[in-house]
Amino acid sequence: MHGAVPRGFTIHTAPVGIEDDGRDDLCIIASDVPARSAAVFTRSRFAGPSVTLSRDAAADGRARGVVVIARNANVATGVEGSRNATAVRDSTARALGIAPSELLVASTGVIGRQYPMPQILDHLNGLTWPPAGEPRDMTAAARAIMTTDTRPKFLSARIGEATLTGIAKGVGMIEPDMATLLTFFATDAELDEETLAAVFKRVMDITFNAVSIDTDTSTSDSAAIFSNALAGPVDPEEFEQALLSVALGLVKMIASDGEGASTLIQVEVEGARDEAQAKRVGKAVVNSPLVKTAVHGADPNWGRVVMAIGKCQEDTDILPERVAVRFGDIGVYPPGADEDERRDSVAAYLKAADEVVIGIDLGIGEGRFTVYGCDLTEGYVRLNSQYTT
Amino acid sequence: MHGAVPRGFTIHTAPVGIEDDGRDDLCIIASDVPARSAAVFTRSRFAGPSVTLSRDAAADGRARGVVVIARNANVATGVEGSRNATAVRDSTARALGIAPSELLVASTGVIGRQYPMPQILDHLNGLTWPPAGEPRDMTAAARAIMTTDTRPKFLSARIGEATLTGIAKGVGMIEPDMATLLTFFATDAELDEETLAAVFKRVMDITFNAVSIDTDTSTSDSAAIFSNALAGPVDPEEFEQALLSVALGLVKMIASDGEGASTLIQVEVEGARDEAQAKRVGKAVVNSPLVKTAVHGADPNWGRVVMAIGKCQEDTDILPERVAVRFGDIGVYPPGADEDERRDSVAAYLKAADEVVIGIDLGIGEGRFTVYGCDLTEGYVRLNSQYTT
Repeated sequence: MHGAVPRGFTIHTAPVGIEDDGRDDLCIIASDVPARSAAVFTRSRFAGPSVTLSRDAAADGRARGVVVIARNANVATGVEGSRNATAVRDSTARALGIAPSELLVASTGVIGRQYPMPQILDHLNGLTWPPAGEPRDMTAAARAIMTTDTRPKFLSARIGEATLTGIAKGVGMIEPDMATLLTFFATDAELDEETLAAVFKRVMDITFNAVSIDTDTSTSDSAAIFSNALAGPVDPEEFEQALLSVALGLVKMIASDGEGASTLIQVEVEGARDEAQAKRVGKAVVNSPLVKTAVHGADPNWGRVVMAIGKCQEDTDILPERVAVRFGDIGVYPPGADEDERRDSVAAYLKAADEVVIGIDLGIGEGRFTVYGCDLTEGYVRLNSQYTT
Repeated sequence: MHGAVPRGFTIHTAPVGIEDDGRDDLCIIASDVPARSAAVFTRSRFAGPSVTLSRDAAADGRARGVVVIARNANVATGVEGSRNATAVRDSTARALGIAPSELLVASTGVIGRQYPMPQILDHLNGLTWPPAGEPRDMTAAARAIMTTDTRPKFLSARIGEATLTGIAKGVGMIEPDMATLLTFFATDAELDEETLAAVFKRVMDITFNAVSIDTDTSTSDSAAIFSNALAGPVDPEEFEQALLSVALGLVKMIASDGEGASTLIQVEVEGARDEAQAKRVGKAVVNSPLVKTAVHGADPNWGRVVMAIGKCQEDTDILPERVAVRFGDIGVYPPGADEDERRDSVAAYLKAADEVVIGIDLGIGEGRFTVYGCDLTEGYVRLNSQYTT
């Protein structure tokens, strides 16, 4: 059932020739009937026109779908780039017979290049809806939005009679041109507008907003959910659990995909003053190049973790004598008498795991947060330095 | 004259066996007469006892020297580590016949291990002052504080009759265990206390506080200057220029040393609202893994620079249409008609340069700041993942 299309959604994918390899690079996901939606976008100061248009369209919670162009971000392309994004949206909306304001636009890939507009418009102007040929599922959509991802990322869940399917494409570690993240969810579950927005925000905050591969924020990050209610009402809590499991699964796929990354790192911070402090400490650790390379090398060098915690200089309530650090279940700080033995256990743990858990207890309060990232490998450097645009 | 010892300073270096390779790992630099001093230290929440002791000693501006132990940071070592740092300081002060409060302590290397105290104290308790044997110069001192630096870093300047010599040891890119930075300056120039403190702070802010190799802040960073006035008064502005040139030279040595780093990156930001904004933007660019790998691969992918500028999300006065970006003298953004030609020029510039300048004009105000960093290479990952502690 993974990749299943919720009822009342139609998918279209096609190669419009952004690059010359015949791969699908255009993708449309849209509900056949009006839908509710929620969306979040990059906060980059260099956000592209796709993000700007989508932010406007998403404001009223009435978007029913998205058109995605992959392998060209359409960012830093000036007035011409804005005009092109509008033309892509309007031509798609016309083909689907919906209002342009019901459609989001997303794009991902190299920065600073114009779209090849004649071939894109040729395709969209000849498009019938529903599209001719075999119906596509969400797997095809996940494949069409890839840039340098090594595999498509999609997951589905059932909530009573309803289906929820999410797709995503990679971030930095597997993305030579940009740490670009796109993720879209389609569901036929019925939720009222406020619940949908609240649930989506809560889940994004602890999944996609908790993943960090290389600290490079994309100009194109977009996440949206479309719900057309065709399966009727569902229990909101059950829906939130389903969305959480699908989103978390996609986040883990992203953090562990690709030539560059080999190990998922999960940093679980507890005992913080509040959730914000827990997140700050978690990010300091998961983003530390020295922690990331130690995990890659299975080096039981826990000193790098305390160094990274120490970087939170404004958090003057963090006191070394209250902090505890573990790798998996193995406590490493404060150090004890069996230091050498524990280092050996940590080395063995790091060698065996393809998912490393670093636990930190700050010993201050009740705040907790978990962040996700990956190791730093020669493959990341190779991929990002040898790729020529 | 580089490495010259300003008059009235005595240097001692020796191997006390922190590791078993016979390399010098203990270093003492001290003025024979009382001195004035200024110092700055890491703000890490996991600062070690060396930093804590030194911060206290430096407070009155009367330190006359420093004892450094290299290749063991003495950090995260608890009460025992604090006792050991105090013992090192007190034994050294006793050997030199000065008050413990006149001596700074610094340490750098692996975290979470206790000093081998018996052999350190054996050495210090047998030490005569001035030390027996050939006098050492600042080159020997620069060598004794190295961890995995590939070469010692020292520079001297003349100010009238006075000498100023600075030494430093590496940061992250060349330092498998910690992004640890130590730098010390000795001078026989006479400056009043307030001038010395103000000049030192100003110069550190635009040199050592403007360098960033891998965003990992050390638990041991320490910088200090000792001035014993034996060469008499100097022109403060001339002294500041000399200190700036020595400090900047050391910063560039640090950013370009080592197996890991191959190219110095200098990001010059102008047209900012203020200096703080210019520094924030510069750091976002110089720390971006995607910019760093692009420089390493001589990839003219300027899109990564605008992406990195875009990460300054709180700076809502940064507008893409006002920003200009150049590599060396070659303007790349806003893009122009001769796009392909400019990409070729940038690629040629990146291939040829071992010092890459990225210029950014934000088009807002008069604020400017320059930051220093280096590229990200397979060597960095190798060094930091394969080194076992």
